[in-house]
Amino acid sequence: MSPSMVDPEKEQELKDLANKLRIHSIRATNASNSGHPTSCCSAAEIMSVLFFHEMRYSVENPKDPYSDRFVLSKGHAAPILYAAWVEAGLIPEKELLNLRKIDNDLEGHPTPRLSFVDVATGSLGQGLSCAAGMAYTGKYFDKADYRVYCAIGDGESSEGSIWEALHFAGMYQLDNLVAIFDINRLAQSQAAPLGHSIDVYRQRIEAFGWNVICVNGHDVMALCRSFQLARTVKHKPTAIIAKTLKGCGIPGVEDVENWHGKPLGALAENAMSEISKRIKNVTKHKLSINPPKSDGSLSAVDFSKIRLCDPPKYSIGDKVATRLAYGTALVKLGHSCDKVIALDGDVKNSTYADKFRNAFPDRFIECYIAEQNMVGVAIGCGTRGRTLPFCSTFATFFTRAYDQLRMGAISQANIKCCGSHAGISIGEDGPSQMGLEDIAMFRTLPGSTILYPSDAVSCERAVELVARQPGICFVRTSRPNTPVIYENDETFSIGKAKIIRRSDEDEAMIVAAGVTLFEAIKAADQLENKGVKVAIIDIFSVKPIDAETLINEANRVGGRVVTVEDHYVEGGIGEAVAAALSDNDHVHVKRLAVNALPRSGSPEALMDMFGISAKHIIEAVEQSP
Amino acid sequence: MSPSMVDPEKEQELKDLANKLRIHSIRATNASNSGHPTSCCSAAEIMSVLFFHEMRYSVENPKDPYSDRFVLSKGHAAPILYAAWVEAGLIPEKELLNLRKIDNDLEGHPTPRLSFVDVATGSLGQGLSCAAGMAYTGKYFDKADYRVYCAIGDGESSEGSIWEALHFAGMYQLDNLVAIFDINRLAQSQAAPLGHSIDVYRQRIEAFGWNVICVNGHDVMALCRSFQLARTVKHKPTAIIAKTLKGCGIPGVEDVENWHGKPLGALAENAMSEISKRIKNVTKHKLSINPPKSDGSLSAVDFSKIRLCDPPKYSIGDKVATRLAYGTALVKLGHSCDKVIALDGDVKNSTYADKFRNAFPDRFIECYIAEQNMVGVAIGCGTRGRTLPFCSTFATFFTRAYDQLRMGAISQANIKCCGSHAGISIGEDGPSQMGLEDIAMFRTLPGSTILYPSDAVSCERAVELVARQPGICFVRTSRPNTPVIYENDETFSIGKAKIIRRSDEDEAMIVAAGVTLFEAIKAADQLENKGVKVAIIDIFSVKPIDAETLINEANRVGGRVVTVEDHYVEGGIGEAVAAALSDNDHVHVKRLAVNALPRSGSPEALMDMFGISAKHIIEAVEQSP
Repeated sequence: MSPSMVDPEKEQELKDLANKLRIHSIRATNASNSGHPTSCCSAAEIMSVLFFHEMRYSVENPKDPYSDRFVLSKGHAAPILYAAWVEAGLIPEKELLNLRKIDNDLEGHPTPRLSFVDVATGSLGQGLSCAAGMAYTGKYFDKADYRVYCAIGDGESSEGSIWEALHFAGMYQLDNLVAIFDINRLAQSQAAPLGHSIDVYRQRIEAFGWNVICVNGHDVMALCRSFQLARTVKHKPTAIIAKTLKGCGIPGVEDVENWHGKPLGALAENAMSEISKRIKNVTKHKLSINPPKSDGSLSAVDFSKIRLCDPPKYSIGDKVATRLAYGTALVKLGHSCDKVIALDGDVKNSTYADKFRNAFPDRFIECYIAEQNMVGVAIGCGTRGRTLPFCSTFATFFTRAYDQLRMGAISQANIKCCGSHAGISIGEDGPSQMGLEDIAMFRTLPGSTILYPSDAVSCERAVELVARQPGICFVRTSRPNTPVIYENDETFSIGKAKIIRRSDEDEAMIVAAGVTLFEAIKAADQLENKGVKVAIIDIFSVKPIDAETLINEANRVGGRVVTVEDHYVEGGIGEAVAAALSDNDHVHVKRLAVNALPRSGSPEALMDMFGISAKHIIEAVEQSP
Repeated sequence: MSPSMVDPEKEQELKDLANKLRIHSIRATNASNSGHPTSCCSAAEIMSVLFFHEMRYSVENPKDPYSDRFVLSKGHAAPILYAAWVEAGLIPEKELLNLRKIDNDLEGHPTPRLSFVDVATGSLGQGLSCAAGMAYTGKYFDKADYRVYCAIGDGESSEGSIWEALHFAGMYQLDNLVAIFDINRLAQSQAAPLGHSIDVYRQRIEAFGWNVICVNGHDVMALCRSFQLARTVKHKPTAIIAKTLKGCGIPGVEDVENWHGKPLGALAENAMSEISKRIKNVTKHKLSINPPKSDGSLSAVDFSKIRLCDPPKYSIGDKVATRLAYGTALVKLGHSCDKVIALDGDVKNSTYADKFRNAFPDRFIECYIAEQNMVGVAIGCGTRGRTLPFCSTFATFFTRAYDQLRMGAISQANIKCCGSHAGISIGEDGPSQMGLEDIAMFRTLPGSTILYPSDAVSCERAVELVARQPGICFVRTSRPNTPVIYENDETFSIGKAKIIRRSDEDEAMIVAAGVTLFEAIKAADQLENKGVKVAIIDIFSVKPIDAETLINEANRVGGRVVTVEDHYVEGGIGEAVAAALSDNDHVHVKRLAVNALPRSGSPEALMDMFGISAKHIIEAVEQSP
């Protein structure tokens, strides 16, 4: 029987299941005394039809690569997602009473601590980008049959990231993607801006290149037909605009304001009793779940062994920007592993991601100037290990996607970010284009890795290292051409700094990276001419930081430490080093960093003006106690 | 003569001016050997018509409150903006040859170091939110005649923030706002996604509630008519979709790819010569500039003297959440000063900004769930001192607007942000809702101020202090009810910590804020029972930090310092304190902070599990060397 065929018995089963999901949601949120039962109830029929009629998936193996994907962008409706998996048979019903408890993975908003969650949601407006990444992967990389479904709230539809994702999915004709807009009219603190103006949603989303179907979101038959129709539309993603009622089915609460995020409390028993009356089949439901269609083509890849296909090939002293070495290394990774993909925000000729595009045009995703969506798509592409996504833009423009990166950490996302144009050394373009807070930002992500290569050899190795390292990794590259200082066979590790100058007479040590490493070398040369020897550390691995080397060297040189970075002082290398050394007596850390809002100018003049040139390093060493 | 009347002589003058602007842009970028002449040339007629026909402004006083506002969202076209002010008579022509030099304010992208720039641009997609804030202010607060114009590139129209702003401006019927979309087809690294599909732009922007006029962007008469038409449309903002050619007028470069961000070099002379041939009046142009219409109603306000209308009114031990005290204080400020406004992202019943809305509905802007736009609108509202904007959402959702905040710092924006729901102490909602990186983020903004009150009294004073403090200020509030510990007449200052427990026998000091201050008190009580006395510092002012008190107290207690914060360790209070103390011998800073990705649970259980409860503080003190 085709999934489109719905007989009256099945129709009733789907209605029953919707109401069972409502009851589960009400009971679970009452047990936790917090949560969003009314946001669940508007989506009950959508969830029932999706999970018990439309979607193909494996209850035994929710991460099955051939399974359809589901993203609950309106993550606060988590209880009804959990309820669906209860009815599907994965979760014991009694577990719902442990919702939001510290020793249970049924959290307030879904996270991949649960096997059936691919991406964490709860910061609104992000799910569709991730779903679009999954759909892009299914259509263009996996070339597989699985479809991707994303349930979106009307409140979150004000987020620009939703419109970036709509644009992206329309442009790339993701006809394996269905977005279900749960238009329940009521947001958290008042009505959503468009209320039940279904036509406005239709006009906007159609204009963004989607096939749009408007439907009563509580009519299971209409929903079944809509999903079936979506399957027949080629070259366009489908949006199902579902007109619903918040708290649908709950007497006195349905479609009433001021019920967002509130358990029903004393109203719960009556509500559950009223909803129960509509259920015909109160025992275990009879519907079977559509299994995924496997053809054996979707192999898994072990990224932990990925390597550059060729080692770096430079000569000491060659002048090469690290951003260029990034492009070179990415191509080498691409040759080694066909799961490596690259994403760009229309700066590929500046980040040198265009080298990858030229080599592997089919594995390159141009996301245009929409960094939030780029990161969300990358996260989606990386789910279930289907690809190894590298996304790049100017380091500072990752600030646009900070919330996506933050949620990516909760999502246990495996994405690699390269931020070019670090710091004031970009020069004339001025402060809007200078990455001066990117280290601070990426450091805050739990489990993140940050590598900051100073030359082309270390940059190529940084790219290789992050490819093998799970989680969100950041490689910081610079605009200026800088000399190669490492031999091609030099080895680098995550968590290890490099001591690039060291003598028994060192009176201080300078910790630097990127362009400031070369200022440190200049400073050390000039200091040596004055009879003062200093050690130089190339920090390379900003996170995790090499505390052992820092402590040993700091103690060896008598505790005089100068850090210098092309970044603001807050949250940067200096503070990371000071923190790593804070438990040591007699250690003084003088932190040189960009010390004010910069401006346009030549790189050299700026580094001098804002306190990070050789001159300032020399002063700092000489003033060290 | 009405501005709409354009005689043939004036038409030619406007054409001449457009070409003069082209020549200035080419010459300036050639002099700096960097910059974006082709992005200027597509906008030449738009700029000519705006500055010499449509807009009302004062060349003598570009910040005149009655003047029309202009925002160059496509900030990389800065040279043509500077050229317009040259032709208007503000800037000497020869200054253009100093474009992008370190000792000149004609930077690569516009910043308010220039008197005629209200907001910095250069990170794309942000200008329209700021312009919408200015237009909202003009229409609803100032109730003045000035109009707001915003020039937007097609590349940046992929940014979701543009669509947030379009939605906002349409919803609030900002008929004093005109957005000019410069559809020159070519973005940085390839064609923009929609190319010259003017109809798609029309459909999308119309669907977002705008009056849309499509026009040949190089036809000065058509542009004049479009602006005139826009003046007649009520209750809708107008978008002028201008079909243009990138590099228009430059032989061999016009409408050709790979010319983004490149000076013409050797091609410049010929280009300028060819463009010159089209200029009829090569001497000073004859057009007069429309002056602003002043009615004397727009008074300036000195925010440095603003005060709470009533002092805090609590009793020691009252249990009050700081987020609630924020709402209370905001209302008190609102009574003191009618320029105080509040903005919300549909969480006003959680942040307690709804108290302000209830008291002053006409000074409250609901921005719905679109934090980027909320911050951009706030920045716009605050320009020229027209209002004092307070915007609030969950602390963590400010990460969504990090790039806007970053640009806000470059814009010298005067906005006040309140982030509620700090840290794991929010409990059951889980990590997606927990602000654990907000301190790190706000610390990186040059010139920012961060206050983290621990009780209701200090929170009210924090709100008062930031109102008086110029720049971007952040007040961090917490969800749980916590006891009042300060007397109502306690005084607080920016840059000053409070020592809340101190004795001559202190063996260590604990630095805390917010919920952890109460853990510190518990810990100190228990330690005292064991015979160990410790000092407690309420840091209050996270930035600027009170280094003097920290150093003095650290030395007084023998260098044993424990910091404890409901925030990740990176970039937070612990690192700020460690950095402040890094120049002192014998000081050990043990940093307690949320030490892993958290989860749902009760606040108490979470604080224990993630290392910031009294138990952990006691251990840290006892283990301190």
